[in-house]
Amino acid sequence: MSSDLDNLRVVLVAARNPLNIGAAARAMSNFGIRRLRVVNPYEVAFQEARSAVGAAGLLAKAEQYENVAEAVADCRLVVGTTVAGRRELQHRLQRLDEGGRAIKRQLKTGPVALLFGSERVGLSNQEMSHCHWMMRIPTREEHGSMNLGQAVAVCLYELVRGRKTARAKAAPGQKKKTPAKSEEVERLTQALLEVLRTSGYVNPRVTTSEEKLRRLVRRLTLNADDAEVLLGMLRQIAWKLGTNEKNEN
Amino acid sequence: MSSDLDNLRVVLVAARNPLNIGAAARAMSNFGIRRLRVVNPYEVAFQEARSAVGAAGLLAKAEQYENVAEAVADCRLVVGTTVAGRRELQHRLQRLDEGGRAIKRQLKTGPVALLFGSERVGLSNQEMSHCHWMMRIPTREEHGSMNLGQAVAVCLYELVRGRKTARAKAAPGQKKKTPAKSEEVERLTQALLEVLRTSGYVNPRVTTSEEKLRRLVRRLTLNADDAEVLLGMLRQIAWKLGTNEKNEN
Repeated sequence: MSSDLDNLRVVLVAARNPLNIGAAARAMSNFGIRRLRVVNPYEVAFQEARSAVGAAGLLAKAEQYENVAEAVADCRLVVGTTVAGRRELQHRLQRLDEGGRAIKRQLKTGPVALLFGSERVGLSNQEMSHCHWMMRIPTREEHGSMNLGQAVAVCLYELVRGRKTARAKAAPGQKKKTPAKSEEVERLTQALLEVLRTSGYVNPRVTTSEEKLRRLVRRLTLNADDAEVLLGMLRQIAWKLGTNEKNEN
Repeated sequence: MSSDLDNLRVVLVAARNPLNIGAAARAMSNFGIRRLRVVNPYEVAFQEARSAVGAAGLLAKAEQYENVAEAVADCRLVVGTTVAGRRELQHRLQRLDEGGRAIKRQLKTGPVALLFGSERVGLSNQEMSHCHWMMRIPTREEHGSMNLGQAVAVCLYELVRGRKTARAKAAPGQKKKTPAKSEEVERLTQALLEVLRTSGYVNPRVTTSEEKLRRLVRRLTLNADDAEVLLGMLRQIAWKLGTNEKNEN
């Protein structure tokens, strides 16, 4: 398998069942994807999962994170998976085959995170707010929720499916801007939030506005240069607003 | 899901693990495939599997057979799945995406059986001899063998992928966002420029910075709603910066 798959990070958020963690790892190994990240897993489950068939090495190298922000910090595209049945989504939603194409393009240029939520409740709104967009496996409406290990297998299959033909098409001569990393986008989000609080646009006690803002900033699909420029602008505005002392801390 | 999927029979041959039988049934339910056949299952496993999440009804209706010949008797196409690593195949082998196309064509005209072998050894030569051809999921050579439940999920996904069912297209309530009009984008650009001048980021005498800023704002490819929200933010910031009098002119 070629190296752009090495840009994929499979991120399991709050997984609870060792069999599912193991199954996810096994599917990754089957399809040649090596980078597993776990956010706040149920510790016992994570330890037990390490015996998964053929994937022990992969699990031993899995990286643990406290929260989604840290787990996706170095990624330039963050995609969440969802059943999208019960609650209304605040994000753009793509079907797996469409979304898969977008992910494959991005994998050629830099790290991409693919997030899977916990078995029972999926990704929370807060966790989703770190995503650029969401993706859905085309399951039946009446029984949409897939087993975690199976969902991972299906998504990864979509990403490796038909690779030879996909690669033959490659790259028109145009130079594409590098998308901003998640940590850069998050830094920008926080700077904007600070300015909006200082100027009275946002009530500091309302946390939903932070999630709304995070989603809005991700919809801008910023490139790295523009993100840096915008951050500089916000810092200047913050300074003028007299909040520069806070930002220096 | 349309009726041609009702022509598909998923046939598990000598499955040993109740979790795998249950997982196969769950994936079938997820993708709207109802006909499960089991050949010579380990009886205890089959009984335990009947509690699978969301698939109890499907398992209760599963049909049991003594051998492959009886299980595929009514089918006009019989396809086996294989890792095809260890032993030499006597059959034509298709990649899942190619084979999937052929199966989909056949489903329009009559029953098709898709066979999965036991967890440890797959399909025997005798069992395979009932197949018209074999199909392979594109896994890595070094770790080709998939978990049974995951293999079923991936194969079924390939068969339903890209089907033009109404609900696969978009989740409930999702509207495609209207891109912002140029005049809205320009209004935003001017508001941002004003704030940047007031805060000292931009020198009012340098006109190239206006052009740079205009290009940057266009690169954000804003939708109309987001453009309006951002404009509101900038107006609040401008007000706080004490430039609100200017904006009212």
